[in-house]
Amino acid sequence: MNKDFNYSNLKIGIIGGGQLGKIMSQKAKKMGFHVTILDPTFNCPAAQVSDKHIIGGFYDKDKLEQIVQENDVTTFELEHVDMTILKELYNHGHKIHPSPYVMELIQNKYEQKKLLDEKGIPVPMYKDVRNDEDLASFGFPVIQKAKLGGYDGKGVQMLKSQEEVNTKAIRDESFIEELVNIDKELAIIVARNIEGEIKCYPVVEMLFDERVNICDSVLAPARIPFEIEQKAIEISKKSIEALNGIGIFGVELFLTKDGKVLVNEIAPRPHNSGHYTVEACATSQFEQIIRAVTNLPLGSTKLISPAVMINLLGEENYEGEPFIHGIHDALEIPELSFHFYGKSYTKPFRKMGHITVLDDDINKALEKAMKAKDILKIKGSKRYV
Amino acid sequence: MNKDFNYSNLKIGIIGGGQLGKIMSQKAKKMGFHVTILDPTFNCPAAQVSDKHIIGGFYDKDKLEQIVQENDVTTFELEHVDMTILKELYNHGHKIHPSPYVMELIQNKYEQKKLLDEKGIPVPMYKDVRNDEDLASFGFPVIQKAKLGGYDGKGVQMLKSQEEVNTKAIRDESFIEELVNIDKELAIIVARNIEGEIKCYPVVEMLFDERVNICDSVLAPARIPFEIEQKAIEISKKSIEALNGIGIFGVELFLTKDGKVLVNEIAPRPHNSGHYTVEACATSQFEQIIRAVTNLPLGSTKLISPAVMINLLGEENYEGEPFIHGIHDALEIPELSFHFYGKSYTKPFRKMGHITVLDDDINKALEKAMKAKDILKIKGSKRYV
Repeated sequence: MNKDFNYSNLKIGIIGGGQLGKIMSQKAKKMGFHVTILDPTFNCPAAQVSDKHIIGGFYDKDKLEQIVQENDVTTFELEHVDMTILKELYNHGHKIHPSPYVMELIQNKYEQKKLLDEKGIPVPMYKDVRNDEDLASFGFPVIQKAKLGGYDGKGVQMLKSQEEVNTKAIRDESFIEELVNIDKELAIIVARNIEGEIKCYPVVEMLFDERVNICDSVLAPARIPFEIEQKAIEISKKSIEALNGIGIFGVELFLTKDGKVLVNEIAPRPHNSGHYTVEACATSQFEQIIRAVTNLPLGSTKLISPAVMINLLGEENYEGEPFIHGIHDALEIPELSFHFYGKSYTKPFRKMGHITVLDDDINKALEKAMKAKDILKIKGSKRYV
Repeated sequence: MNKDFNYSNLKIGIIGGGQLGKIMSQKAKKMGFHVTILDPTFNCPAAQVSDKHIIGGFYDKDKLEQIVQENDVTTFELEHVDMTILKELYNHGHKIHPSPYVMELIQNKYEQKKLLDEKGIPVPMYKDVRNDEDLASFGFPVIQKAKLGGYDGKGVQMLKSQEEVNTKAIRDESFIEELVNIDKELAIIVARNIEGEIKCYPVVEMLFDERVNICDSVLAPARIPFEIEQKAIEISKKSIEALNGIGIFGVELFLTKDGKVLVNEIAPRPHNSGHYTVEACATSQFEQIIRAVTNLPLGSTKLISPAVMINLLGEENYEGEPFIHGIHDALEIPELSFHFYGKSYTKPFRKMGHITVLDDDINKALEKAMKAKDILKIKGSKRYV
C-alpha cells in the first residue's frame, strides 16, 4: 500500500464483531473506508454498523480466507483466532496486522511472558507447569494461568494450598506466577504503525470487580507519581518493540507496593482500558488501529480531558433480552457519554455497554461515574430466584 | 414514550442519508438503538452505517409512511421533504420530531423570517415579492431569496441593479432582504427536548468560500466580545422557543459592523457549523438530536477544547469517483480528525468530507487547519480542461 493508494476506496476486514469491532468499524467508516466483519453471530454489534458481515467462526478457514481475500487489509478485535490459514495468506503477501505470527505468540501467555522476559522487560516471576510438583514450586498462594484461551478473568486462578492443587488446578497447559503485592493495576494503550512509529496513550488505573476479576472502571490519567508514569511508558514501548507488533496493544501492568512496574499481559487489539480515549483523547484507540494498519500517520494521543470509564455489566441473577434501568437519571449527569453495544442477550457480568465521564478534576469525574454506576443497571427478561 | 421505555430496543428513523444522517446514525448506534434511513441513493453515506435502508425519495408518500410506521420515533437530516403524509401520521399520534408543522414553517424561509420578526427577534429588513417592483423597493444592491428549496448558497443571490432584475431575478416565490453590512457570520447550535429543556452550544464563527457562498470553515469559539456572545445566545434560544421546535437547530446569525446581532436563518437539523462538536464538545450535536427526540436528558454542551472545522469540497474541474490527495501529509498534523463521507461521486464544491483540528489556542488550531486545507484535495476520476 503506497502513498498513492486510493483511500476513498479502501477495504478493511475486521475479525470479530463485538464492541471493540463495532467502535473500530465506526471510526473506519468515519474516514470513509469500507468495512467487513467476520463473526459467527447474526446481527452482532459490529455488523450493525458495517458494510458487510461474513457469518463464520474464528476457526473457519474458508471464512478467514474470504475476509482476507476480499479486503485490502485485515485486522483483529480478538486474539482467539486460528492462525494457520492466516499465516499462509500473510506469507503470500496479504496484508494482515498485527501479523498472524505476532498474534500466535501473544495467544500463548507463557510464550508471551518468556519473550518479554528474555528481552529484559520486568515481569512477575513465572514458571512453566509440566506436572503438579511445578505448581507448588513457588509455595502458596500462587497464580495459575492457562497458556491459551483465557479472557476476562477466565483461565486465571489463585491456588491457596497443596489441597487446591488437587481439587481445582487447571488441567490444560499452564504456568504459574508469583502472587504480586499489587499497589495498583495500570494499563497503557500503545500504537505502532507499519513504519515502526510508536505512540503511547496516558497511563491509566484499572479497578476490578472483585467478584469476577473483570475490569470495572478505568481512571485516566492514573493517580501515580511522574517517575512511575515514565517507567510504565518506557517498558510498555519496549514490550511492543520486542513483539514487533503493528496495530494497537493494551499493555496491562502491575505497580507493586515496593514501587516496581511489571508487565502482566498484552492484548494485541483495542483494549477495555482504552475505551475512555473515544471521548478523552485527540485520537481514539479505535481510530488509531485503523490508521496504523492502513499505513496512515498515527494520530495525536493527547489527553484532552481527564476521564473515568465504567463498564456496564449484565446484572447477576438475570439473563435474556436486556433492559436498561436508570438511563434517564444517569444521562442527567453532565459530561457523561453512554455506550450500549446492541447485544441481544444479557448474562451475569457480560459486558453490555460502558459510560465515560469527563471532568477537569479526575476525582470529580470518578464521583460522577460512581453515581452513574449506582443508577444504571442492565437486567434481563429472565430472572433467577 | 415514558421513562420505562426499553431503550435497548428503540427504533429510530432518519429521513435523509447524507453526512448528517451518517453521523446521527453512528451516535444512535453508539447508544445501541436500531436505525433506519430513508434515502433515494443506494449505498448513501448513512445507509452504510445503519441497520436498515429504505430506498425512496423525500416526496414518496408510501416510503415516508413506511419509515414512520416502522420506527418508534422519526427525525430528519434535511428539510426538503413532503410534509403532507407526515402531518397526517403526526396527528394520529406517531412520534416525529421536529414536528412536520415546524418543519413546514421552516421550509418556507419567508414564513420563518416573518414568525421570528413577529416574536420580536431581530432579523434583517425583508419584504415579500409579488412583482418586479417589489424587488426594487429597498434599492440596489439587494438580496433575493427563494422562499422554498434553497440550500448551500442555492436559491440566494444578489441583485445589483434594475437591469439584473430583468435578467437574473429568481422567478419562483421569493422575498428580498436588505444587504447587511456584515462584520462576521456567526452560528449557534441549539438543542431542545420534548420537555422543553434548551441547551446552547458555543457561538462559532463561519468563514465562507466566496466563489460559491458555501461555508468553508468554522471557528469554535468565535472571536467576539462577551456581550455579543450573550446577545447571540439569547436571541437563538428565543428563536427556537418561538418555533416550539424539538431536536437540533442550526441558527445562522449576522454580526453587523455596528454591533447588532440578526438571525439570518434556521436549519431544523444538525448543521455544518456544528460538526466541530463531535471532537470538541462533551456531547456532539449528532448525539444531542438523538437524545432530544427520544426523550432523554440533553447532554452537556461544554466545549472541551477550541476547534476549527474545514469542509473538504470536491475540487473544481473534476467529477466522478473521488480520490483523496495529500492524506498522509495532512494526517501528520496533530489533533486532526479526518471525516470522509463515503459518497461515490465527487463534483465541484460537493461536500465530500471535513476535518476538525483541536488546539488549546484557537489561532494555532486555525493555522493547523489552514495547513491541512492546502494539502488535502478531493479530485475525481474525470477531469475537465
